[in-house]
Amino acid sequence: ISFAASYTDSSDDETSPRDKQQKNSKGNGDFCIKNIKQADFGRREIEIAEQEMPALMALRKRAQGEKPLAGAKVVGCTHITAQTAVLMETLSALGAQCRWAACNIYSTQNEVAAALAEGGFSVFAWKGESEDDFWWCIDRCVNVEGWQPNMILDDGGDLTHWIYKKYPNMFKKIKGIVEESVTGVHRLYQLSKAGKLCVPAMNVNDSVTKQKFDNLYCCRESILDGLKRTTDVMFGGKQVVVCGYGEVGKGCCAALKAMGSIVYVTEIDPICALQACMDGFRLVKLNEVIRQVDIVITCTGNKNVVVREYLDRMKNGCIVCNMGHSNTEIDVASLRTPELTWERVRSQVDHVIWPDGKRIVLLAEGRLLNLSCSTVPTFVLSITATTQALALIELYNAPEGRYKQDVYLLPKKMEEKQNGEMVNPKASLLLFFLGAW
Amino acid sequence: ISFAASYTDSSDDETSPRDKQQKNSKGNGDFCIKNIKQADFGRREIEIAEQEMPALMALRKRAQGEKPLAGAKVVGCTHITAQTAVLMETLSALGAQCRWAACNIYSTQNEVAAALAEGGFSVFAWKGESEDDFWWCIDRCVNVEGWQPNMILDDGGDLTHWIYKKYPNMFKKIKGIVEESVTGVHRLYQLSKAGKLCVPAMNVNDSVTKQKFDNLYCCRESILDGLKRTTDVMFGGKQVVVCGYGEVGKGCCAALKAMGSIVYVTEIDPICALQACMDGFRLVKLNEVIRQVDIVITCTGNKNVVVREYLDRMKNGCIVCNMGHSNTEIDVASLRTPELTWERVRSQVDHVIWPDGKRIVLLAEGRLLNLSCSTVPTFVLSITATTQALALIELYNAPEGRYKQDVYLLPKKMEEKQNGEMVNPKASLLLFFLGAW
Amino acid sequence: ISFAASYTDSSDDETSPRDKQQKNSKGNGDFCIKNIKQADFGRREIEIAEQEMPALMALRKRAQGEKPLAGAKVVGCTHITAQTAVLMETLSALGAQCRWAACNIYSTQNEVAAALAEGGFSVFAWKGESEDDFWWCIDRCVNVEGWQPNMILDDGGDLTHWIYKKYPNMFKKIKGIVEESVTGVHRLYQLSKAGKLCVPAMNVNDSVTKQKFDNLYCCRESILDGLKRTTDVMFGGKQVVVCGYGEVGKGCCAALKAMGSIVYVTEIDPICALQACMDGFRLVKLNEVIRQVDIVITCTGNKNVVVREYLDRMKNGCIVCNMGHSNTEIDVASLRTPELTWERVRSQVDHVIWPDGKRIVLLAEGRLLNLSCSTVPTFVLSITATTQALALIELYNAPEGRYKQDVYLLPKKMEEKQNGEMVNPKASLLLFFLGAW
Amino acid sequence: ISFAASYTDSSDDETSPRDKQQKNSKGNGDFCIKNIKQADFGRREIEIAEQEMPALMALRKRAQGEKPLAGAKVVGCTHITAQTAVLMETLSALGAQCRWAACNIYSTQNEVAAALAEGGFSVFAWKGESEDDFWWCIDRCVNVEGWQPNMILDDGGDLTHWIYKKYPNMFKKIKGIVEESVTGVHRLYQLSKAGKLCVPAMNVNDSVTKQKFDNLYCCRESILDGLKRTTDVMFGGKQVVVCGYGEVGKGCCAALKAMGSIVYVTEIDPICALQACMDGFRLVKLNEVIRQVDIVITCTGNKNVVVREYLDRMKNGCIVCNMGHSNTEIDVASLRTPELTWERVRSQVDHVIWPDGKRIVLLAEGRLLNLSCSTVPTFVLSITATTQALALIELYNAPEGRYKQDVYLLPKKMEEKQNGEMVNPKASLLLFFLGAW
Repeated sequence: ISFAASYTDSSDDETSPRDKQQKNSKGNGDFCIKNIKQADFGRREIEIAEQEMPALMALRKRAQGEKPLAGAKVVGCTHITAQTAVLMETLSALGAQCRWAACNIYSTQNEVAAALAEGGFSVFAWKGESEDDFWWCIDRCVNVEGWQPNMILDDGGDLTHWIYKKYPNMFKKIKGIVEESVTGVHRLYQLSKAGKLCVPAMNVNDSVTKQKFDNLYCCRESILDGLKRTTDVMFGGKQVVVCGYGEVGKGCCAALKAMGSIVYVTEIDPICALQACMDGFRLVKLNEVIRQVDIVITCTGNKNVVVREYLDRMKNGCIVCNMGHSNTEIDVASLRTPELTWERVRSQVDHVIWPDGKRIVLLAEGRLLNLSCSTVPTFVLSITATTQALALIELYNAPEGRYKQDVYLLPKKMEEKQNGEMVNPKASLLLFFLGAW
Repeated sequence: ISFAASYTDSSDDETSPRDKQQKNSKGNGDFCIKNIKQADFGRREIEIAEQEMPALMALRKRAQGEKPLAGAKVVGCTHITAQTAVLMETLSALGAQCRWAACNIYSTQNEVAAALAEGGFSVFAWKGESEDDFWWCIDRCVNVEGWQPNMILDDGGDLTHWIYKKYPNMFKKIKGIVEESVTGVHRLYQLSKAGKLCVPAMNVNDSVTKQKFDNLYCCRESILDGLKRTTDVMFGGKQVVVCGYGEVGKGCCAALKAMGSIVYVTEIDPICALQACMDGFRLVKLNEVIRQVDIVITCTGNKNVVVREYLDRMKNGCIVCNMGHSNTEIDVASLRTPELTWERVRSQVDHVIWPDGKRIVLLAEGRLLNLSCSTVPTFVLSITATTQALALIELYNAPEGRYKQDVYLLPKKMEEKQNGEMVNPKASLLLFFLGAW
Repeated sequence: ISFAASYTDSSDDETSPRDKQQKNSKGNGDFCIKNIKQADFGRREIEIAEQEMPALMALRKRAQGEKPLAGAKVVGCTHITAQTAVLMETLSALGAQCRWAACNIYSTQNEVAAALAEGGFSVFAWKGESEDDFWWCIDRCVNVEGWQPNMILDDGGDLTHWIYKKYPNMFKKIKGIVEESVTGVHRLYQLSKAGKLCVPAMNVNDSVTKQKFDNLYCCRESILDGLKRTTDVMFGGKQVVVCGYGEVGKGCCAALKAMGSIVYVTEIDPICALQACMDGFRLVKLNEVIRQVDIVITCTGNKNVVVREYLDRMKNGCIVCNMGHSNTEIDVASLRTPELTWERVRSQVDHVIWPDGKRIVLLAEGRLLNLSCSTVPTFVLSITATTQALALIELYNAPEGRYKQDVYLLPKKMEEKQNGEMVNPKASLLLFFLGAW
Repeated sequence: ISFAASYTDSSDDETSPRDKQQKNSKGNGDFCIKNIKQADFGRREIEIAEQEMPALMALRKRAQGEKPLAGAKVVGCTHITAQTAVLMETLSALGAQCRWAACNIYSTQNEVAAALAEGGFSVFAWKGESEDDFWWCIDRCVNVEGWQPNMILDDGGDLTHWIYKKYPNMFKKIKGIVEESVTGVHRLYQLSKAGKLCVPAMNVNDSVTKQKFDNLYCCRESILDGLKRTTDVMFGGKQVVVCGYGEVGKGCCAALKAMGSIVYVTEIDPICALQACMDGFRLVKLNEVIRQVDIVITCTGNKNVVVREYLDRMKNGCIVCNMGHSNTEIDVASLRTPELTWERVRSQVDHVIWPDGKRIVLLAEGRLLNLSCSTVPTFVLSITATTQALALIELYNAPEGRYKQDVYLLPKKMEEKQNGEMVNPKASLLLFFLGAW
């Protein structure tokens, strides 16, 4: 998810958006955002994003003929970014009506929300919502006179949860749920097990394509980007240890090797270790190299991979960061002791200084580097967004009875049918993904 | 050169630094900068830079024993950045006194200048000098009561020029000039030819190491960095044409290939073309691929490589940028016509829009991407800075008569002697460069 | 499987081994091979192989303490090569008695068989057996007075089939079958489905490790080796099209890209196509590039990928070869027409000449290049052989009832338990695989 | 130079070729070779070579119009291989008459010599000449009734030397010498210095193209080829130390890294060391890694890089080989001591066995691996051969006075003129080199 800065925030006033009278230039006021005046700037961001979302743009072109979402009333709860805006405007072009809230209180790009509101979308979101604001926004999306959703697009399950809790009757008209996150999918499977899932749901998190893109291909680029933006470090000749050789680790290792770093790998899974070895990385224990490396990157998914003992032994200037799925791979808590001095030298960059003057460079306080200090390429988000759109189309148009009250993966046949037709360049989903092929 | 933002500038008042009464916390006022209050922030930047300048830091350690620049009075005129600060503080640790001006009216990092002034250095520089300010600052460095320089460190030759013009007698005490830039070196050779060079000069621009670092190794990283920061483009699967396969082109191609791009090369030099070919890049004429590529990168050193005709034929969303030595590789002027709309979507990013809606993404208006949209890694600047320090030491300590009134390269023997001793890790210049080896 | 030449065959006499009186230097005659005099040469080959089979050699060392196969009577039917010899001698060191036949009438290395016979093994195999010889040899292994096997090690299922057919009662004493080949495993599953499998069987064909080694890692090397040995072609700068981007295709592409070839990929599976794309290979249809490429490599697993129409359009000197699993990927039959001249220029290399003088270079008549023109690295065979040994140990020592009359994969726990202990270098199976780590 | 086996030699009789009556099928007997019956087989080898020598073949096509060597009488002394045959037949097509001897007593491919003789060339060469034979053959080339050479093509300077010594008057008609080898070029420069060079000479050894091809590009492939053919070693996961990071070392390192080896580099030149470092190789002293590596490769150009002390400390199975320019990089002599056992396990492969059973695998007895155990790709030889042909054309057609009695490099202008015209694909020399572009 892109947390790219909302450049003009600082000049905004402090009044809560909920307390303001809001209208767009056409007089429409069915939205609640930070500042409608940022719409033009947000439109620019959306236009940039469109350049890297060829699949959605291709879907729009198709929609000039058919409107596969005609009559669909989609309520959505996702990060509100330029990429989401491209998705929403695509859904709209395909015939859907949309109402939208944010799935995260910090991630909204205010200027994009403004552009959407200006464009006629009912958006309820701003950067820096309180928890109360968060649920208020979601409620404003669903609790409307004379409009009832028939499709849910969720990221994290909060929207679904809210409807379950407050408006269970609404499910009678709902044809299905499309859920993107690990957490949300987990909740759906629990509902399903408990016999409480009352509409079909589509799990768009677990697809080969998405996994490869979110991890291997994406991290191959974001590790470089995240390190550069924060530290301007030169990669050539640096010694780096990468902890973990799953898809994320593979991406990190490949990128750094290509930039001329000397890369070591720690790995406890034998198959992954063997792959690291056959890919030409020296397998080590962290212990063996901790004194000599210039950069330490964690991507194991485990806790406390880099503990205080290791931090104590790193050399002066060592950069430490986390690309894994947990915020606890680096034992940052162990560094909050009186003898160590913390110095914030840049946004997301702390120098932690030992009594003898040694300093290590800690990025994003051990949180995910690729989310905190890099941007997820629009192209990757495009894969997800296209999959979401396809899942909505599938669920909305499926004949009665094809999908029960269960959690489904995007039907392989659909993917195959569309992708398989690579001989017919017009029809291939892959082509959408790749754009210009 | 790093033109990293001076974050606090916007809040500064508009009074010219020349009109302000300035004093650091110790009461010293022999400097002229923007705002002494930024010193702490500048100190952070210097500390970050120190982490990536191991060679200079190693030189400092040595200096605890010997002071090879004891008695040296160095007047300098370079970009004033965190990296320069590390150099100046190293020269000081080696025994030298320093007075410094900026060689560029835009490139000064005000907060670094503040930290230097606070640390007791006589610095005369700020971001956004007028031309008159520029020469005034240089003059303040050399025209001092009771202090006369005996060494010159120049980048561009303006300082040297000023002394020639205004204070020619000063050369009687000057032991030598160290010059870094192509332009400055060119001026020195002209003086030498004309028999007007009156002290020895050291050309630190032309060394294998510097050439490789400034081009191949540096561009291998900065092409990715520059593209990411401006466009967030995903490299994997993109089709890219790189115009020119010199050192810069080689770096760009290697990096993009490693990220999964499909890279084409145009090249007219047969040897370079052969290398591109043997490195696995398809040689093309721009003509052949211009319709299909996603990114066009120029690094030929020639003019008008990408002309309007090609720009007209690029596909929608194509990114165009320049990594070469000239600002005219892309014929940007040809895009300033009424039928095309320019839209500034971000800093350094313009969308140029054709009547049919096609837009190309032009970076840095065709100026050098790596200077405009990326940062030069401190590590690369460290190579240059170390070479400058070594050249000063050499000239300052050379026995009478070793150097005539001529332009010299850093004596190969010195390099070799120091580098050759890799068996003795303490003594190797290379080790300085590489730091931790 | 390595079909490395048996160098001294040509000088052998023509008498069938079955008609000869055979004895080794200790007077033992319970074997039937080509020529016992080749034993010394075979011993050299075995010694070479031992260098690249660290896992088996490590197993032997262990066996100095424990004899996990004490009492085991193993009857085997595999390719008889130096690597098999290392396996057999390891089984023997672990306590087993062995009798062995060849699973292929051509693949026996006569000198290795000689060395085994000289070493006391009952081997029945020679290069160039008739079909009658083949079954006679197998029969000699099992039909022995006073010796009955209790373990079967099979490659292809012929031995198992023979015992089913001729000596079904033998299964009463047999503790299990270890089967390596796709075909053999398929037969076992059929038996199991039909309720006719009367002992546990271990499928050692389907493991991640084996799949990766046999395909990705192995082909990455053997594509280069096979092309070099047959054609001495230089890879740098060559244009190559690889048909299929499965594991084999991935290996071929990675290797050729690294050698400086320009590689195109054809692929119809969308996921694999996407991977090719993100790995930086241009996706094409064979049609588009057939006129320009220097080398065509098939690895799709399909039939008639390269048909006569394509062969007609290739340029002069184009090399065509097959790395896939089928012998019919290249439509070689279509080249057996009167207007085309075939010229055998080297072993495994034919020039097929068109009426206008154009010639294409066809390798191994379209059969598998890596089997015909390269050698499978001993190291890869070592992986398989070690897995076989571990499977034998597991089945032989399993407590009554753990394994039913069914087909099993090597228990993951065992792998994990051993591999997981990488913290304890002595215990890890992975270490065996990797040898010296 | 390719020392590919002459497959049918063993069956040849033992009579010296000089004692045989020889005639080809047309009754011509002006040649002396081993066995004219091998001509067909040699013709196949030449046809294979033609496929990989596109530049010479293109030169031939041109020659259908112009005959730039009409009237030239070329006497040559080079390795006599399939590639040389392609060169000779090209010279002939361009209008020249040729007489040829071998520059090495072992390197002649007898079957190629036979094909040339059958084709009407006056060839005097066979594999296994005595020194007396060697000079006799050269003499037969130049000492002919009614024929006097006007061009010399030499490789090593022996032919030139012979004419200087025996037929100095011959130089009156000679227009120039083209010399390929380091040694021969050295001799020419000495003659020139001494004022004794009486015709212009062209040094075709020292060109960027040739240097890159002979070292970097060629060794990148031949290191893999040489190791595979001798040891079948799997490269993936192996630890390798490469001594020296010049062009040869760079090629070796790049290839092995790409195959998944973990590569260490030793280097004493600081610039090369820096390059190794920035290319991602860990710089070590041999000392540090000698116990752990699987393969040791020398390419320093120095003596005794790998001494007995290191050999003693290598691990069991370590492979040791030499890719450098000297045969003494590995101190093989130190291994000829009584306590060590040598075992020849294959052609070019020795196991040297220590008293405790440890064995190292020594390739080619420490001679050049790429010459002994690999083949030089025809494509590389094609570069040299084309350059030789161009040099002959240049010298033969140069206007009186352009070239003095001195040693010249192939005029850059000529190269540039031809290569620069890449816009005109018909004219480019580069195109010849690359063939199909």
